Amino acid sequence: MTDPPDNPPELARPTAPPDRRPGGRTARIRAQVLDAVRAELGEHGYEGLTMEGVAARAGVHRATVYRRWQDVGGLLADVLDAAGEDDWQPPNTGSLRGDLTALNDEIQESLVAQPSVPEALMAASFRSAQAAHAQHQLWEDRYARCEALVERAIDRGELPPHTDARRLLIAATAPLYHQLVLLRTAPDPQLPGHAATTATLAAAAGAFTRPAQGEES
Amino acid sequence: MTDPPDNPPELARPTAPPDRRPGGRTARIRAQVLDAVRAELGEHGYEGLTMEGVAARAGVHRATVYRRWQDVGGLLADVLDAAGEDDWQPPNTGSLRGDLTALNDEIQESLVAQPSVPEALMAASFRSAQAAHAQHQLWEDRYARCEALVERAIDRGELPPHTDARRLLIAATAPLYHQLVLLRTAPDPQLPGHAATTATLAAAAGAFTRPAQGEES
Repeated sequence: MTDPPDNPPELARPTAPPDRRPGGRTARIRAQVLDAVRAELGEHGYEGLTMEGVAARAGVHRATVYRRWQDVGGLLADVLDAAGEDDWQPPNTGSLRGDLTALNDEIQESLVAQPSVPEALMAASFRSAQAAHAQHQLWEDRYARCEALVERAIDRGELPPHTDARRLLIAATAPLYHQLVLLRTAPDPQLPGHAATTATLAAAAGAFTRPAQGEES
Repeated sequence: MTDPPDNPPELARPTAPPDRRPGGRTARIRAQVLDAVRAELGEHGYEGLTMEGVAARAGVHRATVYRRWQDVGGLLADVLDAAGEDDWQPPNTGSLRGDLTALNDEIQESLVAQPSVPEALMAASFRSAQAAHAQHQLWEDRYARCEALVERAIDRGELPPHTDARRLLIAATAPLYHQLVLLRTAPDPQLPGHAATTATLAAAAGAFTRPAQGEES
Protein backbone atom coordinates (compact mmCIF):
# COMPACT_ATOMS: atom_id res chain seq x y z
CA MET A 1 0.00 0.00 0.00
CA THR A 2 1.41 3.35 -1.00
CA ASP A 3 0.87 6.63 0.82
CA PRO A 4 -1.79 8.85 -0.67
CA PRO A 5 -0.33 11.95 -2.39
CA ASP A 6 -0.78 14.04 0.69
CA ASN A 7 1.94 16.65 0.52
CA PRO A 8 1.42 19.95 -1.25
CA PRO A 9 2.92 20.31 -4.75
CA GLU A 10 5.92 22.40 -3.75
CA LEU A 11 7.10 19.65 -1.41
CA ALA A 12 6.29 16.68 -3.63
CA ARG A 13 9.32 14.79 -4.83
CA PRO A 14 7.78 12.29 -7.20
CA THR A 15 11.09 10.82 -8.33
CA ALA A 16 12.50 10.26 -4.80
CA PRO A 17 12.16 6.84 -3.17
CA PRO A 18 10.26 6.47 0.14
CA ASP A 19 12.46 8.21 2.62
CA ARG A 20 12.43 7.83 6.40
CA ARG A 21 15.72 9.56 7.12
CA PRO A 22 15.63 12.58 9.42
CA GLY A 23 14.94 15.44 7.09
CA GLY A 24 13.25 13.09 4.63
CA ARG A 25 9.60 12.94 3.60
CA THR A 26 8.39 11.41 6.86
CA ALA A 27 10.15 14.10 8.87
CA ARG A 28 8.78 16.81 6.61
CA ILE A 29 5.22 15.60 7.00
CA ARG A 30 5.68 15.44 10.75
CA ALA A 31 7.01 19.01 10.81
CA GLN A 32 4.08 20.24 8.70
CA VAL A 33 1.54 18.48 10.89
CA LEU A 34 3.07 19.59 14.19
CA ASP A 35 3.32 23.18 12.95
CA ALA A 36 -0.37 22.95 12.12
CA VAL A 37 -1.19 21.55 15.57
CA ARG A 38 0.64 24.42 17.26
CA ALA A 39 -1.06 27.00 15.05
CA GLU A 40 -4.54 25.51 15.55
CA LEU A 41 -3.95 25.17 19.28
CA GLY A 42 -2.77 28.76 19.54
CA GLU A 43 -5.76 30.04 17.58
CA HIS A 44 -8.57 27.85 18.84
CA GLY A 45 -7.27 26.00 21.90
CA TYR A 46 -7.86 22.31 22.56
CA GLU A 47 -11.56 22.91 21.95
CA GLY A 48 -11.01 23.72 18.31
CA LEU A 49 -8.32 21.13 17.62
CA THR A 50 -9.52 18.46 15.20
CA MET A 51 -7.77 15.88 13.06
CA GLU A 52 -9.51 17.35 10.01
CA GLY A 53 -8.48 20.92 10.82
CA VAL A 54 -4.87 19.90 11.36
CA ALA A 55 -4.75 17.84 8.15
CA ALA A 56 -6.24 20.69 6.12
CA ARG A 57 -3.92 23.30 7.59
CA ALA A 58 -0.89 21.06 7.11
CA GLY A 59 -1.87 20.19 3.54
CA VAL A 60 -1.57 16.53 4.45
CA HIS A 61 -4.14 13.84 3.71
CA ARG A 62 -6.47 13.08 6.60
CA ALA A 63 -5.79 9.37 6.31
CA THR A 64 -2.09 9.98 6.92
CA VAL A 65 -2.81 12.02 10.03
CA TYR A 66 -5.17 9.39 11.42
CA ARG A 67 -2.78 6.52 10.61
CA ARG A 68 0.20 8.15 12.19
CA TRP A 69 -1.26 10.06 15.18
CA GLN A 70 -4.57 8.23 15.78
CA ASP A 71 -6.29 11.09 17.59
CA VAL A 72 -5.91 14.58 19.02
CA GLY A 73 -4.15 13.16 22.09
CA GLY A 74 -1.56 11.59 19.80
CA LEU A 75 -0.99 14.92 18.05
CA LEU A 76 -0.54 16.78 21.34
CA ALA A 77 1.81 14.14 22.71
CA ASP A 78 3.94 14.38 19.58
CA VAL A 79 4.10 18.19 19.79
CA LEU A 80 5.38 17.80 23.35
CA ASP A 81 7.80 15.04 22.33
CA ALA A 82 9.09 17.25 19.54
CA ALA A 83 9.59 20.13 21.98
CA GLY A 84 11.92 17.86 23.95
CA GLU A 85 13.97 16.94 20.86
CA ASP A 86 15.56 20.35 20.43
CA ASP A 87 19.05 21.25 21.57
CA TRP A 88 17.91 23.77 24.16
CA GLN A 89 20.41 24.39 26.93
CA PRO A 90 19.90 26.46 30.08
CA PRO A 91 21.39 29.98 30.16
CA ASN A 92 25.02 30.35 31.17
CA THR A 93 25.59 33.89 32.41
CA GLY A 94 28.34 33.24 34.94
CA SER A 95 26.24 33.45 38.11
CA LEU A 96 23.41 31.42 39.63
CA ARG A 97 21.18 34.41 40.00
CA GLY A 98 21.88 35.54 36.45
CA ASP A 99 21.20 32.07 35.07
CA LEU A 100 17.92 31.70 36.97
CA THR A 101 16.79 35.18 35.95
CA ALA A 102 17.54 34.46 32.29
CA LEU A 103 15.72 31.12 32.58
CA ASN A 104 12.71 32.82 34.12
CA ASP A 105 12.78 35.51 31.43
CA GLU A 106 12.51 32.74 28.82
CA ILE A 107 9.64 31.11 30.71
CA GLN A 108 7.77 34.38 31.18
CA GLU A 109 8.20 35.28 27.52
CA SER A 110 6.80 31.92 26.42
CA LEU A 111 3.81 32.24 28.74
CA VAL A 112 2.83 35.82 27.95
CA ALA A 113 3.06 35.27 24.17
CA GLN A 114 -0.33 35.65 22.46
CA PRO A 115 -1.19 32.95 21.74
CA SER A 116 0.98 30.94 24.14
CA VAL A 117 1.47 27.43 22.80
CA PRO A 118 3.06 26.18 26.07
CA GLU A 119 0.03 27.38 28.01
CA ALA A 120 -2.35 25.80 25.51
CA LEU A 121 -0.43 22.53 25.88
CA MET A 122 -0.69 22.71 29.68
CA ALA A 123 -4.43 23.33 29.37
CA ALA A 124 -4.75 20.42 26.95
CA SER A 125 -2.86 18.12 29.29
CA PHE A 126 -5.82 18.30 31.69
CA ARG A 127 -7.95 16.71 28.98
CA SER A 128 -5.79 14.05 27.41
CA ALA A 129 -3.94 11.45 29.45
CA GLN A 130 -1.55 10.99 26.54
CA ALA A 131 -0.78 14.70 26.45
CA ALA A 132 -0.42 14.74 30.25
CA HIS A 133 2.16 11.97 30.07
CA ALA A 134 4.10 13.73 27.32
CA GLN A 135 3.90 17.03 29.21
CA HIS A 136 5.30 15.33 32.32
CA GLN A 137 8.17 13.88 30.25
CA LEU A 138 8.95 17.29 28.74
CA TRP A 139 9.11 18.95 32.17
CA GLU A 140 11.34 16.12 33.41
CA ASP A 141 13.67 16.60 30.47
CA ARG A 142 13.80 20.39 30.87
CA TYR A 143 14.49 20.27 34.60
CA ALA A 144 17.13 17.57 34.03
CA ARG A 145 18.91 19.79 31.49
CA CYS A 146 18.77 22.70 33.96
CA GLU A 147 20.67 20.68 36.54
CA ALA A 148 23.83 21.68 34.64
CA LEU A 149 23.13 25.24 35.71
CA VAL A 150 23.11 24.21 39.37
CA GLU A 151 26.24 22.09 38.96
CA ARG A 152 28.08 25.08 37.52
CA ALA A 153 27.06 27.14 40.57
CA ILE A 154 28.36 24.38 42.85
CA ASP A 155 31.65 24.33 40.88
CA ARG A 156 31.93 28.11 41.26
CA GLY A 157 31.43 27.76 45.03
CA GLU A 158 28.12 29.64 44.94
CA LEU A 159 26.23 26.64 46.37
CA PRO A 160 26.98 23.88 48.85
CA PRO A 161 27.98 20.59 47.18
CA HIS A 162 24.94 18.66 48.39
CA THR A 163 22.40 21.00 46.84
CA ASP A 164 19.20 19.37 45.57
CA ALA A 165 19.13 20.82 42.05
CA ARG A 166 15.54 19.90 41.31
CA ARG A 167 14.13 21.54 44.43
CA LEU A 168 16.13 24.68 43.75
CA LEU A 169 14.96 24.82 40.12
CA ILE A 170 11.33 24.33 41.09
CA ALA A 171 11.54 27.03 43.76
CA ALA A 172 13.01 29.41 41.18
CA THR A 173 10.52 28.74 38.40
CA ALA A 174 7.26 27.71 40.10
CA PRO A 175 6.11 31.28 40.92
CA LEU A 176 6.06 32.12 37.19
CA TYR A 177 3.83 29.21 36.25
CA HIS A 178 1.70 29.77 39.35
CA GLN A 179 1.10 33.45 38.69
CA LEU A 180 0.83 33.39 34.90
CA VAL A 181 -0.93 30.06 34.31
CA LEU A 182 -2.98 29.33 37.44
CA LEU A 183 -3.52 32.69 39.18
CA ARG A 184 -3.74 34.57 35.88
CA THR A 185 -2.24 37.72 37.34
CA ALA A 186 -1.00 40.38 34.93
CA PRO A 187 2.62 39.78 33.88
CA ASP A 188 5.07 41.55 36.19
CA PRO A 189 8.39 42.39 34.54
CA GLN A 190 10.10 42.07 37.93
CA LEU A 191 8.80 38.55 38.56
CA PRO A 192 11.58 36.61 36.76
CA GLY A 193 14.28 38.42 38.74
CA HIS A 194 12.40 38.30 42.03
CA ALA A 195 11.80 34.56 41.82
CA ALA A 196 15.44 33.98 40.83
CA THR A 197 16.66 36.09 43.76
CA THR A 198 14.38 34.29 46.19
CA ALA A 199 15.72 30.89 45.16
CA THR A 200 19.31 32.14 45.21
CA LEU A 201 18.98 33.57 48.73
CA ALA A 202 17.22 30.44 50.00
CA ALA A 203 19.93 28.27 48.42
CA ALA A 204 22.70 30.29 50.06
CA ALA A 205 20.89 29.82 53.39
CA GLY A 206 20.95 26.04 52.87
CA ALA A 207 17.30 25.54 51.91
CA PHE A 208 18.10 22.93 49.27
CA THR A 209 21.00 21.18 50.97
CA ARG A 210 20.62 17.42 51.21
CA PRO A 211 22.17 15.68 54.18
CA ALA A 212 25.57 14.33 53.10
CA GLN A 213 25.54 10.54 52.81
CA GLY A 214 28.66 9.32 54.61
CA GLU A 215 31.76 11.16 53.42
CA GLU A 216 31.79 13.52 50.47
CA SER A 217 31.30 11.44 47.37
CA MET B 1 -45.04 32.29 37.21
CA THR B 2 -44.40 29.90 40.07
CA ASP B 3 -41.35 27.71 40.44
CA PRO B 4 -41.80 24.16 39.28
CA PRO B 5 -41.86 21.67 42.18
CA ASP B 6 -38.18 21.06 41.86
CA ASN B 7 -37.05 20.08 45.32
CA PRO B 8 -37.24 16.51 46.57
CA PRO B 9 -40.13 15.61 48.89
CA GLU B 10 -38.15 15.69 52.13
CA LEU B 11 -37.20 19.30 51.50
CA ALA B 12 -40.54 20.49 50.18
CA ARG B 13 -42.27 22.99 52.42
CA PRO B 14 -45.56 23.53 50.64
CA THR B 15 -46.97 25.86 53.29
CA ALA B 16 -43.95 28.17 53.51
CA PRO B 17 -43.92 31.43 51.55
CA PRO B 18 -41.17 32.11 48.97
CA ASP B 19 -38.08 32.55 51.05
CA ARG B 20 -34.84 34.21 49.99
CA ARG B 21 -33.24 34.50 53.42
CA PRO B 22 -29.87 32.80 53.92
CA GLY B 23 -30.77 29.28 54.95
CA GLY B 24 -34.11 29.57 53.19
CA ARG B 25 -35.35 27.72 50.13
CA THR B 26 -33.16 29.65 47.68
CA ALA B 27 -30.07 28.94 49.74
CA ARG B 28 -31.01 25.28 50.07
CA ILE B 29 -31.44 24.85 46.34
CA ARG B 30 -28.10 26.56 45.77
CA ALA B 31 -26.42 24.21 48.26
CA GLN B 32 -27.98 21.15 46.60
CA VAL B 33 -26.95 22.30 43.13
CA LEU B 34 -23.39 23.25 44.10
CA ASP B 35 -22.94 19.94 45.93
CA ALA B 36 -24.05 18.22 42.75
CA VAL B 37 -21.61 20.26 40.64
CA ARG B 38 -18.72 19.31 42.93
CA ALA B 39 -19.71 15.65 42.89
CA GLU B 40 -20.15 15.53 39.09
CA LEU B 41 -16.90 17.43 38.57
CA GLY B 42 -15.04 15.07 40.88
CA GLU B 43 -16.44 12.00 39.16
CA HIS B 44 -16.47 13.03 35.52
CA GLY B 45 -14.43 16.25 35.25
CA TYR B 46 -15.50 19.25 33.21
CA GLU B 47 -16.05 16.94 30.26
CA GLY B 48 -18.93 15.18 31.96
CA LEU B 49 -20.48 18.24 33.59
CA THR B 50 -23.90 19.04 32.12
CA MET B 51 -26.80 21.17 33.28
CA GLU B 52 -29.04 18.08 33.02
CA GLY B 53 -26.69 15.86 35.06
CA VAL B 54 -26.38 18.49 37.79
CA ALA B 55 -30.15 19.08 37.94
CA ALA B 56 -30.84 15.34 38.15
CA ARG B 57 -28.22 14.75 40.81
CA ALA B 58 -29.41 17.74 42.84
CA GLY B 59 -33.06 16.73 42.52
CA VAL B 60 -33.80 20.22 41.21
CA HIS B 61 -35.81 21.02 38.10
CA ARG B 62 -33.70 21.69 35.01
CA ALA B 63 -35.53 24.93 34.34
CA THR B 64 -34.46 26.27 37.73
CA VAL B 65 -30.83 25.41 37.08
CA TYR B 66 -30.89 27.05 33.64
CA ARG B 67 -32.69 30.15 34.93
CA ARG B 68 -30.37 30.68 37.83
CA TRP B 69 -26.95 29.58 36.48
CA GLN B 70 -27.44 29.86 32.68
CA ASP B 71 -24.71 27.39 31.73
CA VAL B 72 -21.87 25.21 33.01
CA GLY B 73 -19.60 28.27 33.30
CA GLY B 74 -22.16 29.83 35.62
CA LEU B 75 -22.24 26.72 37.78
CA LEU B 76 -18.45 26.59 38.04
CA ALA B 77 -18.20 30.27 38.85
CA ASP B 78 -20.75 29.87 41.63
CA VAL B 79 -18.90 26.88 43.12
CA LEU B 80 -15.79 29.05 43.23
CA ASP B 81 -17.72 32.01 44.64
CA ALA B 82 -19.18 29.73 47.32
CA ALA B 83 -15.70 28.47 48.21
CA GLY B 84 -14.73 32.05 48.98
CA GLU B 85 -17.76 32.60 51.25
CA ASP B 86 -16.54 30.33 54.05
CA ASP B 87 -14.86 31.54 57.22
CA TRP B 88 -11.52 29.91 56.47
CA GLN B 89 -8.58 31.48 58.24
CA PRO B 90 -4.89 30.69 57.74
CA PRO B 91 -3.16 28.48 60.33
CA ASN B 92 -1.83 30.12 63.48
CA THR B 93 0.86 27.90 64.97
CA GLY B 94 3.07 30.55 66.57
CA SER B 95 5.84 30.61 63.96
CA LEU B 96 6.10 31.61 60.31
CA ARG B 97 7.57 28.30 59.29
CA GLY B 98 4.92 26.39 61.24
CA ASP B 99 2.12 28.45 59.69
CA LEU B 100 3.43 28.01 56.15
CA THR B 101 3.94 24.28 56.65
CA ALA B 102 0.39 23.88 57.99
CA LEU B 103 -0.94 25.95 55.08
CA ASN B 104 0.97 23.79 52.60
CA ASP B 105 -0.28 20.63 54.31
CA GLU B 106 -3.84 21.84 53.71
CA ILE B 107 -3.07 22.62 50.08
CA GLN B 108 -1.36 19.28 49.46
CA GLU B 109 -4.22 17.40 51.10
CA SER B 110 -6.78 19.14 48.90
CA LEU B 111 -4.77 18.44 45.75
CA VAL B 112 -4.01 14.76 46.36
CA ALA B 113 -7.62 13.94 47.31
CA GLN B 114 -9.23 11.56 44.85
CA PRO B 115 -11.12 13.13 43.27
CA SER B 116 -9.68 16.60 43.88
CA VAL B 117 -12.38 19.23 43.37
CA PRO B 118 -9.87 22.11 43.53
CA GLU B 119 -7.82 20.52 40.77
CA ALA B 120 -10.93 19.87 38.68
CA LEU B 121 -11.88 23.54 39.11
CA MET B 122 -8.41 24.65 37.99
CA ALA B 123 -8.69 22.40 34.94
CA ALA B 124 -12.16 23.78 34.20
CA SER B 125 -10.91 27.35 34.47
CA PHE B 126 -8.90 26.78 31.28
CA ARG B 127 -12.18 26.21 29.46
CA SER B 128 -14.59 28.75 30.83
CA ALA B 129 -13.74 32.43 31.04
CA GLN B 130 -16.39 32.81 33.73
CA ALA B 131 -14.79 30.05 35.81
CA ALA B 132 -11.34 31.55 35.19
CA HIS B 133 -12.50 34.89 36.55
CA ALA B 134 -14.08 33.28 39.62
CA GLN B 135 -10.96 31.15 40.18
CA HIS B 136 -8.81 34.30 40.04
CA GLN B 137 -11.08 36.00 42.60
CA LEU B 138 -10.90 32.99 44.91
CA TRP B 139 -7.09 32.95 44.81
CA GLU B 140 -7.05 36.69 45.47
CA ASP B 141 -9.30 36.24 48.48
CA ARG B 142 -7.28 33.33 49.86
CA TYR B 143 -3.94 35.08 49.50
CA ALA B 144 -5.42 38.25 51.02
CA ARG B 145 -6.59 36.27 54.08
CA CYS B 146 -3.13 34.71 54.39
CA GLU B 147 -1.56 38.13 54.70
CA ALA B 148 -2.57 38.00 58.40
CA LEU B 149 -0.10 35.16 58.79
CA VAL B 150 2.71 37.33 57.46
CA GLU B 151 1.65 40.27 59.60
CA ARG B 152 1.82 38.11 62.73
CA ALA B 153 5.36 37.05 61.78
CA ILE B 154 6.32 40.72 61.37
CA ASP B 155 4.79 41.48 64.80
CA ARG B 156 6.80 38.64 66.33
CA GLY B 157 9.97 40.08 64.81
CA GLU B 158 10.45 37.05 62.53
CA LEU B 159 10.28 39.20 59.40
CA PRO B 160 11.37 42.71 58.45
CA PRO B 161 8.51 45.25 58.58
CA HIS B 162 8.52 45.96 54.84
CA THR B 163 7.96 42.36 53.79
CA ASP B 164 5.86 41.84 50.65
CA ALA B 165 3.34 39.35 52.01
CA ARG B 166 2.00 38.29 48.64
CA ARG B 167 5.41 37.44 47.17
CA LEU B 168 6.32 35.48 50.29
CA LEU B 169 3.04 33.54 50.19
CA ILE B 170 3.42 32.71 46.53
CA ALA B 171 7.00 31.55 47.02
CA ALA B 172 5.83 29.30 49.85
CA THR B 173 2.86 27.75 48.07
CA ALA B 174 3.70 27.79 44.34
CA PRO B 175 5.89 24.65 44.40
CA LEU B 176 2.91 22.58 45.60
CA TYR B 177 0.64 23.67 42.77
CA HIS B 178 3.49 23.40 40.29
CA GLN B 179 4.46 19.86 41.24
CA LEU B 180 1.02 18.43 41.93
CA VAL B 181 -1.09 20.18 39.29
CA LEU B 182 1.24 21.04 36.41
CA LEU B 183 4.23 18.67 36.69
CA ARG B 184 2.08 15.81 38.01
CA THR B 185 4.86 14.42 40.14
CA ALA B 186 3.95 11.90 42.82
CA PRO B 187 3.03 13.58 46.13
CA ASP B 188 6.04 14.03 48.39
CA PRO B 189 5.17 14.17 52.10
CA GLN B 190 8.19 16.42 52.66
CA LEU B 191 7.14 18.97 50.06
CA PRO B 192 4.90 21.14 52.30
CA GLY B 193 7.66 21.53 54.87
CA HIS B 194 10.42 22.01 52.32
CA ALA B 195 8.56 24.75 50.48
CA ALA B 196 7.70 26.45 53.78
CA THR B 197 11.32 26.31 54.90
CA THR B 198 12.56 27.68 51.60
CA ALA B 199 10.26 30.68 51.81
CA THR B 200 11.12 31.25 55.48
CA LEU B 201 14.87 31.20 54.82
CA ALA B 202 14.51 33.45 51.79
CA ALA B 203 12.37 35.86 53.83
CA ALA B 204 14.92 35.99 56.62
CA ALA B 205 17.57 36.80 53.99
CA GLY B 206 15.47 39.75 52.82
CA ALA B 207 14.10 38.24 49.59
CA PHE B 208 10.67 39.78 50.02
CA THR B 209 11.63 43.10 51.58
CA ARG B 210 10.20 46.12 49.83
CA PRO B 211 12.21 49.31 49.83
CA ALA B 212 10.88 51.52 52.64
CA GLN B 213 9.02 54.53 51.27
CA GLY B 214 10.36 57.56 53.10
CA GLU B 215 10.18 57.06 56.87
CA GLU B 216 8.45 54.11 58.47
CA SER B 217 4.74 54.55 57.98
